[in-house]
This record gives sequence, C-alpha cells and structure tokens, in this order.
Amino acid sequence: MIRFNCDYLEGAHPRILEALTKTNLEQTVGYGCDEYCDMARDAVKKVCNDNSIDVHFLVGGTQTNLTVISSALRAHQGVLSAETGHINCHETGAIEATGHKVIALPTENGKIKACDIDHYVERYRADEAWEHVVQPKMVYISNPTETGTIYSKAELTEISESCRRNGLYLFLDGARLGYGLACKRNDLDIPAITALTDVFYIGGTKVGLLFGECLVITNPALKEDFRCVIKQKGGMLAKGRLLGVQFYEMFRDGLYFEISEHAMNMAEKLKADITALGYEFDGDSPTNQQFVKLTGKQVELLSEDFSFENMGLLPDGRVLVRFCTSWATKEENIDKLIEKLKEIREV
Amino acid sequence: MIRFNCDYLEGAHPRILEALTKTNLEQTVGYGCDEYCDMARDAVKKVCNDNSIDVHFLVGGTQTNLTVISSALRAHQGVLSAETGHINCHETGAIEATGHKVIALPTENGKIKACDIDHYVERYRADEAWEHVVQPKMVYISNPTETGTIYSKAELTEISESCRRNGLYLFLDGARLGYGLACKRNDLDIPAITALTDVFYIGGTKVGLLFGECLVITNPALKEDFRCVIKQKGGMLAKGRLLGVQFYEMFRDGLYFEISEHAMNMAEKLKADITALGYEFDGDSPTNQQFVKLTGKQVELLSEDFSFENMGLLPDGRVLVRFCTSWATKEENIDKLIEKLKEIREV
Amino acid sequence: MIRFNCDYLEGAHPRILEALTKTNLEQTVGYGCDEYCDMARDAVKKVCNDNSIDVHFLVGGTQTNLTVISSALRAHQGVLSAETGHINCHETGAIEATGHKVIALPTENGKIKACDIDHYVERYRADEAWEHVVQPKMVYISNPTETGTIYSKAELTEISESCRRNGLYLFLDGARLGYGLACKRNDLDIPAITALTDVFYIGGTKVGLLFGECLVITNPALKEDFRCVIKQKGGMLAKGRLLGVQFYEMFRDGLYFEISEHAMNMAEKLKADITALGYEFDGDSPTNQQFVKLTGKQVELLSEDFSFENMGLLPDGRVLVRFCTSWATKEENIDKLIEKLKEIREV
Amino acid sequence: MIRFNCDYLEGAHPRILEALTKTNLEQTVGYGCDEYCDMARDAVKKVCNDNSIDVHFLVGGTQTNLTVISSALRAHQGVLSAETGHINCHETGAIEATGHKVIALPTENGKIKACDIDHYVERYRADEAWEHVVQPKMVYISNPTETGTIYSKAELTEISESCRRNGLYLFLDGARLGYGLACKRNDLDIPAITALTDVFYIGGTKVGLLFGECLVITNPALKEDFRCVIKQKGGMLAKGRLLGVQFYEMFRDGLYFEISEHAMNMAEKLKADITALGYEFDGDSPTNQQFVKLTGKQVELLSEDFSFENMGLLPDGRVLVRFCTSWATKEENIDKLIEKLKEIREV
Repeated sequence: MIRFNCDYLEGAHPRILEALTKTNLEQTVGYGCDEYCDMARDAVKKVCNDNSIDVHFLVGGTQTNLTVISSALRAHQGVLSAETGHINCHETGAIEATGHKVIALPTENGKIKACDIDHYVERYRADEAWEHVVQPKMVYISNPTETGTIYSKAELTEISESCRRNGLYLFLDGARLGYGLACKRNDLDIPAITALTDVFYIGGTKVGLLFGECLVITNPALKEDFRCVIKQKGGMLAKGRLLGVQFYEMFRDGLYFEISEHAMNMAEKLKADITALGYEFDGDSPTNQQFVKLTGKQVELLSEDFSFENMGLLPDGRVLVRFCTSWATKEENIDKLIEKLKEIREV
Repeated sequence: MIRFNCDYLEGAHPRILEALTKTNLEQTVGYGCDEYCDMARDAVKKVCNDNSIDVHFLVGGTQTNLTVISSALRAHQGVLSAETGHINCHETGAIEATGHKVIALPTENGKIKACDIDHYVERYRADEAWEHVVQPKMVYISNPTETGTIYSKAELTEISESCRRNGLYLFLDGARLGYGLACKRNDLDIPAITALTDVFYIGGTKVGLLFGECLVITNPALKEDFRCVIKQKGGMLAKGRLLGVQFYEMFRDGLYFEISEHAMNMAEKLKADITALGYEFDGDSPTNQQFVKLTGKQVELLSEDFSFENMGLLPDGRVLVRFCTSWATKEENIDKLIEKLKEIREV
Repeated sequence: MIRFNCDYLEGAHPRILEALTKTNLEQTVGYGCDEYCDMARDAVKKVCNDNSIDVHFLVGGTQTNLTVISSALRAHQGVLSAETGHINCHETGAIEATGHKVIALPTENGKIKACDIDHYVERYRADEAWEHVVQPKMVYISNPTETGTIYSKAELTEISESCRRNGLYLFLDGARLGYGLACKRNDLDIPAITALTDVFYIGGTKVGLLFGECLVITNPALKEDFRCVIKQKGGMLAKGRLLGVQFYEMFRDGLYFEISEHAMNMAEKLKADITALGYEFDGDSPTNQQFVKLTGKQVELLSEDFSFENMGLLPDGRVLVRFCTSWATKEENIDKLIEKLKEIREV
Repeated sequence: MIRFNCDYLEGAHPRILEALTKTNLEQTVGYGCDEYCDMARDAVKKVCNDNSIDVHFLVGGTQTNLTVISSALRAHQGVLSAETGHINCHETGAIEATGHKVIALPTENGKIKACDIDHYVERYRADEAWEHVVQPKMVYISNPTETGTIYSKAELTEISESCRRNGLYLFLDGARLGYGLACKRNDLDIPAITALTDVFYIGGTKVGLLFGECLVITNPALKEDFRCVIKQKGGMLAKGRLLGVQFYEMFRDGLYFEISEHAMNMAEKLKADITALGYEFDGDSPTNQQFVKLTGKQVELLSEDFSFENMGLLPDGRVLVRFCTSWATKEENIDKLIEKLKEIREV
C-alpha cells in the first residue's frame, strides 16, 4: 500500500532523528527553558528577521490554535474564520470549548478577503443590538488553506490592514507553511508574515518533524503570560527540548525550506502527470494538496494499491479525492500512482 | 412616542401585579420550592396534559437556553440551529461560552426541516474524520421563529421523528409561544409540543409577565440535577415564588391564552391595514412580528411619533422594519400608526 | 409558621411594588437603556459620591459574581476568596464553570486579611514553577461576610492597598451591604467602598427589592464591554426598567438605608433577648445574621412554629442554627420567637 | 552540572529511539489508528490482564487529566483531590478551565483516605442546600503521590469501595506509576489497579519514553466518544504511531518494569547513603522522589555542581529540596552527589 492521504504519514526527516539521538542522554531542564530551545528560538528570530518576537514551541496544531485564541480573547469575543477553516470544521469544537464562537465567513476557495472582514465589522458596529452579538476580535486564516490555496502578499497585506484598521488580531495558521512558501506562485516569505500578522506559526508536524509547531508572537499585547496558558491547556511538553532540538535542526541551515521544496516538486510532477492523463481537478491548488475527481469505480480500483483521502461525493456522482505530497514523498511512488491512473483512466 | 419595537415594552398584565401585591408580605422558602411554584407547576402539568414532566421557572430566555444546552450536552457535542436562531445570533455567544458549538443550518424562513437534520447527521456519520467534528446531539428550534414564522404540527412531528431516529434531543424555544399558538394558521397546541419535544419553554417575559420562562422537561435523561445547573448558571431566583405567583396567575384560568389572542387580533388588524395601504411585507409572518419595507424617508417621518425595530437595509435601498404587537397593544395606537402610514405612503 | 431562615422570605418593600405598579403600563426600551435606569444610575452615583463610575443592574448575586469575574480575568487567572466565601461554597461551581479557579484562603471569621493576600502573592511570585500555578488576579470579599462579620474601614483600606500593590482587582460582594452599613460597629460607607474597590455591588434582593443587585465599576479597566458579558451570561433583563424603577425608589430618598436600619434594630433586639435567655452564640456577628447553638430537642420543638436555617451539627452534639432579620421583620414575631425560646430553654 | 531535579531530564531509553528510527520511514495512518498503536494496545491489555479495557495514548499528564475529567463530568460536577494533588496545584487551573471545580481534601502525606471521601459525600448529601454545592462525582488520586508516597492495595481497595458505594468515578494518575510499582513497600500491580479504578494511566514521559501517557478506561460509562474529547482538547497526536511504537517497545517484554526497578535501586541507594551522612528527610518517601532538608549554605554549595528542586523554606529556616532518580540515573552520579554532601555536611 502506497499512501498519499496526508503529509504526516512517515516519522521525521532522518536528520531530525539523528539530532534527537545525538542529544538523547544529555540532561536539560524541562518545559522549553533549555539551551536547545534557546538556540531554536534564536534561529527562528533570524528566519523571521525580527528579534522582538516571542517564540514558543507546541506539539500540535489544534493545541496551538486553542491556546492562542483562548489566551487572546475576552469572554464576549469571537474569531472570524473562513467557513472551511480548520478551527471551524475539524477540531471537534476546540475553540468553542474554550468559550469562544468561531464566526464563519463564506468562502469560495478557502480564503477570506479583506473586504469580507471590513463588511462584517461594519455590520457589527452598525447593529443597534451589537451588545447581543459576539464581538469580532481576531481573524484566523490558514496559509496554505485547507483547500490548498495560498494568499498572495497583496492579499495578506490587505487583510493585515483591515485587521489593524478594525482593531482585530490577525492569526495565521501555518501548519503547512513550508509547502505554501515553496510553491511556485507564492510571493510571501516569513519576514513578511512576521510583519503583517500578530501571531502565526510555522508547522513542523507536516513538514519533516516528528511533531511540533513553532509559534511566533509579534504583537506585545499577546505575549504576556502566554506560557501560563500553554500549561493550562495541556500543551507544555515536559521534555521541551525535544521541540528545540527538532526546530533548531530545521532552521539552522535551511533544511525546512529545502524539504518543503522537494514536496512541491513532487506535487508539481503529480499535478502535471495527472492533468496529462485527462483527469479533472477541483480548483487549482498550487500547493502539496491536490484534489482530483474520480469515478466510484476508479476509487475502488485505485484503493487496491494506494491510499488517499476521500473528500465526499460530488453532485455529478463522482468522488473528490485528495492526494498529498510531502518532504518524504518518493518520486517512484508518484510514478506508480500515475501508472495506475493511466490504467484505470476509462473506467 | 408610541412604541411597536418589541413585545416587552410594558411591565406586566395588571392581574400579575395584583397577584404579586396580594402575596407580597407572605413568607415563603426560596429558590422555587414554595407553594406558589408548586401550584404553578400543577397548572402547567394540566396545560401540558402530562403529569410526568419536570417544570422549572427561569427569569429569561438566554439564561434558559444556555442552562438547558449546557446541562444536556457532553464536551464534544453541539446543537443544531437555524442560522437565524436566537442562540446563533443574539445571545453574545452564550452557548459557546458554556463550551458548545452552535451548528448553523441554512434557512429561508427561520425554520429548519427534518430533512436538513437527517442530511446533516448522515454526513456526520459518513465522515471518516467524524471524531474531528462536533457531534450533533441536540436540535434547537424557536416557535414562533425569529422571523415570525411558525411550525405546523406536521413539520414539528417530522422534526421530532428525525431527532428520535438520529438520537438527538429536540429543544423548542417558546419565548413567544403564546403568540404562535394564538395565530390563525397554527395547528399546534401545548400537549402536542409536550409529546413531540424533549424540552421546551413557554415564554412569559414577552407574554404578559414581568419576566419569566416556564421550562418543561419531558425526557427523563434531561431531568437529573437540572436545578444544580440552574444555580450554577446564575438562574436560580432567590425569591422563586415571584415566578410561581406569576405563572400560576397566567395558567390557572387561561389568562395566558386570552392575552395572546388579543396580541394576534392586533397583529391581524395591523397587517390587514398596512396591506390595504399598499406597503410591501417581507415574508408572510402569521404572528405578532410583522416585517415591512419602508423607504428611508418613511422611516424618518414615522420615527417622529413611533418607535419600531430597524432590521437593516434591503438590497433595493429600502429599510426593513419590524412592528410587534403584544398582550398590551392598544387598538387606538394601531389606528394612529395606520393614520401616519397613510400620510407618508408616497414619500 | 414564622420564618427567620433568611432575608428573602417576603416580596418587596411596599413602596417598590407601588412604583412598579405606577409605571407598569408605560412603554420603555429594553435592556436597561430606559430613563428609569438612567435615573437610578444617577441616584447611585450620588450615593457613591462619584460620577465616574459605571452602574449596571443585575438580577441576582451568583449571576453578578460570575459575570464580573469572567469579564475581568484572563484564562490563566483566578480569584482569591475566603474559604467560606459564597463563590467558593454555595454557587455550584459557578466561577469554575466560567473557567477560573477560586483560590480559597483560610479564615477564622469569614474575613480575609491584607497580610494573607500579600503572603499568597509573595509565594506565587517566588515559586520557580509559577507558570504552572493559577495566577492570582482578583480578590473577592463579601461584606457582610457569609458568617455575619463585617470589615472595618481600616481593614478594607489595608486590603485595598495590598491589592493595588500586588496588581489585583478588589471585588466586594455586597449582597447584604445595607445591613452591614447599618450595624452599630460599622465605620464604612458607600463612598469609602467606591474609593477602595475596583468593583462592588449593593444588594437589593435581600434588602427590600423584589430582586436586583446594583453593580458599581470604578476601575476603568473593568468597564469596557461589560454589558456584552452580562448578555452572554444570561443576566440582561429584557425589561431592564424593572430594576431601574426599584433601585431609583430605593436610593432617591434613602429608603435603602432606612429599611436596613430597621433590620439591624430587629437583629440587635433578637440578639439581646436571646443572650438574656442564656443561649450561646457562635461568633459575635454584628449584623442581621445571628448564629445560635441549640440542642437537638430545642431545634425540634422550635421547628413546630418557626423556621430557621440549620447550619449543621457542632462537635458537642448541639446544632448551629441561623436566624436572620430583614427589612420586613416584625417585632411581634421576634417577641414570639423569644417567648418560645424561653419555654424550651431547659430542654 | 549533574541533575537530580526530576525524572524527565534525559530523552528516552535507547531502545525507544531505536524503535522510532527503525519504523521512521514507514507510512501509517494517523491519529492512533495504525498497527503500532494496535500492537501497543494489545500489549497493554496483557499487562492489565483485561481485554475489555479501552486504551488511549496521550502526550502528557496535564492533557490527560483535563481530557479525562472534562469527558466524564457534567456541568455541575467536580472532582475530589488531595490538596497536594497535581490537578489542584500545578496545572495552572487546567481542570477549572474546562469548567469543573477541584474539591481539595486535606492530607498529611499526599494521600487521601476512603473515610475522607465517605465523610465528604455524607455532608454533601445531608446539606439542605446541596443544589448550591458542586456535586462530587470523581475522585482523583496520584500513585505515587506528589510527595513520593504510595497507596497500599488495602488502601486503594477501600477507596475503590468508597467510590462505588458513593457513585463516584475513581481516576488514578500514574505519571510515575512504574516507580511506584517497583518500590519495595509496594503491594499493588497493574491488574489490581485495573480492577479497582474506573480510569487510570501508566506514565511514560517520566519512565523512559520521549513522551506519552497510556490511558486505560475500564468503566464502560467513560468509554463512549472519548477520542472526540481527546481531539477537542488538542491531545490527538497526528502521528499517533509515535506513541504506539514507544509503548509497544516498553510493554512487549517488560522493559517498562525493568527500568523502573533501576530507578528504584538508585533511589534506595541515594536514600541509604544520604541517611548514613546524617541528613534529615521530610517524610519517608518509598519512591524515586526523595525530600531532604538542607541549610541555605548547603544548598548554595551543592548548586555549584548539582541541580535539584527547591521546594521552599521550612519553618526552621532550612530548605526542603527534592532529588529524583529515574530510569536514566547513573550510579556514578549518585556517588558524586554523596561525595559532595559528605563534604558540606557541617556547613
């Protein structure tokens, strides 16, 4: 069985395991206060080109999302998100469980627009019954989005300006940030994201680490006592140095960017080859998630040797499936997939 | 200034104040354990034609909604509601503040359909990632709805069957129930609602009481320790007998239904007269909330002598406004409103 | 049956019901934005001798406590309270239900001391693992306390200074404040409390209103959007004017203080008479709650004609009971109680 | 610097890293549904001698505690814990953040007694105002406790019986369970704990894993949808197989018990040697945490070469410090510590 379901199918990039093995029997203090975490924080500051940021390392994405949002908001405040946003769809109500409404904005491609934010806030402010409505105080976006799209620098700048104009925090979920930055159409980089957001994270779980999300807080208002909230929400790893060692390895010489590029090369190849076979895509994802329409029979046959994500039935009776590449994708496996898709093209 | 904004503009029906005055200096135990609450509970059981129900008296609607929902649901469960539902729109995230997602279903007229529930639950169950999605466990409907529509007996029966089939609790918010039951097109009654729902309430705040909502729990699974949750959420009135006295007065001889009928007569008159003047309505509300389209100039002129709810701009530049009648509406005031609307018909 | 259980046995002072009746059929806007609430707010500002305060009217004490505390604290912060404090003992975990720990401080008489606060904060700050500990951010005191004691001006000043020194908010629960201010030993007044606390309330439910607590916010940091949190927690009364009318009646000419004094005169008489009969008191409560030690037989016999609060068994086998006086206590009923206590003195 | 602060100073037992390395590039499905997790679950069932249990793997202790407790309790319920319990002291209010009060019971040695539970529940039930009090529904104990003590089989049996008699769930936090089971005085084993509790966990983070807690649910009432709550609270590891691989390695041939025994041998040696030097211990901990009283000068000198936990000032001016051994403790380092303690014996 060759798997293309997602980008967390394998363990970690071999250099990560080597680094963990090499440092394994050293003794360090706990909870992220060790020297490896310090080294990793310094490396992240360089990557962000900003020494004023606070850097925290957490284990997973849902954990990071709920910790950031519940730390930032007051009781009556909520967070705007695309209706397809991970916090709105696939975290079992993690944000609501901390007391805050996720305010879903319609979207066609997984992205939200500055004008949607402006419009929502205007209506909120104009509402005579505004005290009876959840106060929008934060905007959550993911980049790449859950549907594989990315924000351009111009789009992110507009969103950032809208947030600042409207007194909202901007929070960017970068669980797959590496892949977004490595894709051809991208014109963003981490220093720009650092400058344009209040808080964001650089995902490790899906980009070569065993696990780990690197959170960057740029807005001073969000920095105070953040570690207390990490602890409260169960996100403070006892052996914090496991995160420090991994992120230091990723950022000390650019490994993170290098392996992200590999994933994108594999995605480009997969996309080109599937396109050449005449299959139809849903949307035009520029990143490592590719959404393809298959017949039920094709799904059945393909499933004999390959695993992939079933996204549900389409109105026309076909099935939408997702193939993901990652840092670990082998070119030979893509060749095998293409071979099989060629065989079943007509069924 | 004559007000038609809502149905809680005046205090209480005079008989309510008389009953409170008459019992005022009696001594009773607190927290709803007094004899007036017992009498009121007995009267409600008769009205519901069911002796097995639990009856609780709470002060307001948001309080009742959040208490019922947070008492019934486990951490990972959510409540389905029309997107226009009060809990989704106008309670400042009260439900989310107790940890639970309000899952909004699209609606055209404020109502949800049994098939929407079925469809949502089917998709939930078919989702391979269902553990990552909030579990639907309760359906919240309001009758009349926030847009003035009502459920027929057939519709409520279908919803009830869908809920039972799918293992969901059905919760009916009856903040304006009296007006719904008194309207011409209605074919529901309280015994039917008792039989078809798991929990519902008969609103008093908007129907002649100073304040108060009468909650009826029919499903034994929702009864246990409910008073503990009322206390925790701040809804247990120290002088609970104030609610008992009021609801007993309302239900001992049918006053609740009598004054609801008056409100509906006034609404019918208002609707007929406004229609006759050639104004356009939004939807075809059969209840005490009437939604009319006015020009900006009409709104301005009408506001000199009358108050009413501004529901926002319509796409065609007109303004949607709401007029409410209630138990307290005076026919002469409707005549004055019609007179004025006649004057400004052409502006 | 003559009742001395608590201070919310009757309805309201007759003038309150008269005011409600007189204004009953007037039309006003809802949610506390009406002119009666404005008049009441102005009256409260005079009573507090401070025009800069924000005044809100809520229905009950638990509701007020949970709204204030959840509005003020961030996720990782908690509130210090005497272990006997109402929020720690008798609100079914209302504060924890909003996400915040009540940090209980030992107490001998229901009061906490400035030095206890200092000491707690010092230990918190000195703790190397402080991020793993709930951050103390607010102090909750009740005056009078749950055991009938009161704070002197010197004590409250010291607590206030400790809070300011330590960056804590000071919140005073004045559910029985009238009785505390009217008692002989008291040297506090409302302007002093206004100056020394960040937020406090003047209780109405137990002091002559049908219901209602008058919340005063003095610290600007606690004022923003407070009404949003009231709404979210279910505490925003639709007919807010019911609270405005009542509090205006109480404060426009000093009725609140006058009836509090009556309660204290009754308490003094009850205390003196019971003392004269040779019964033993628990503590030396200066307020309207009096705690007396009775034998089981005495409890049994007294219960035939009187009701009172059973506080539990004492180590010596006797029972601790509470008698409360209030604005409504009739002297003749105290005489009857004393008569009976005289009869059963020896059993 | 040689560290004795805690039992999570190093990474993992070398066999753990080897197993992770060996399986690193295999592809598996996520979220704990892979074959390694299945193998680990089977191994745990053997260790527990019970095939009916549910087994879940989580990353850390606070996460496990808050997930279990918030999944099990209804809104108005709380959890009893020794006042020294981890959930009461060192989790930044994690349990309260999910809405539930931790009800602290006094303790002299970190343990609670069956009679304390009985007594608390009796008083709760006898309280006329029980609806105003948090309902005790779960008992949380840690074994070993936070002060190094352990429960005997007889004690745990009594607690279990008390819980069953009183309708409470019994939850055992076994973050250091391995060390507790390996200590000389212990007469408990995992099958007994499985039979006596409703839910418990076998700690990995402190006993040789990189991270991970193995949760065992024995009570069917606590099993339903538990994975949904794990996901909601941010505890569902994307690459769940990392936990499966580790726990399988630990339990497939008894490695967990073997390395726990090493830690206890080291603790016994450390205790004997320090005792021989004439130092005084606080309590008589039989486990891997040893609490010793040092003078301030001794602390200062010892800190030059060794790190250990400062537990705070003692009333006599000395300092209480904690030395921990673990699976990774080297005998030569204990010798060095003893050497140093010998040198500074008199200062």
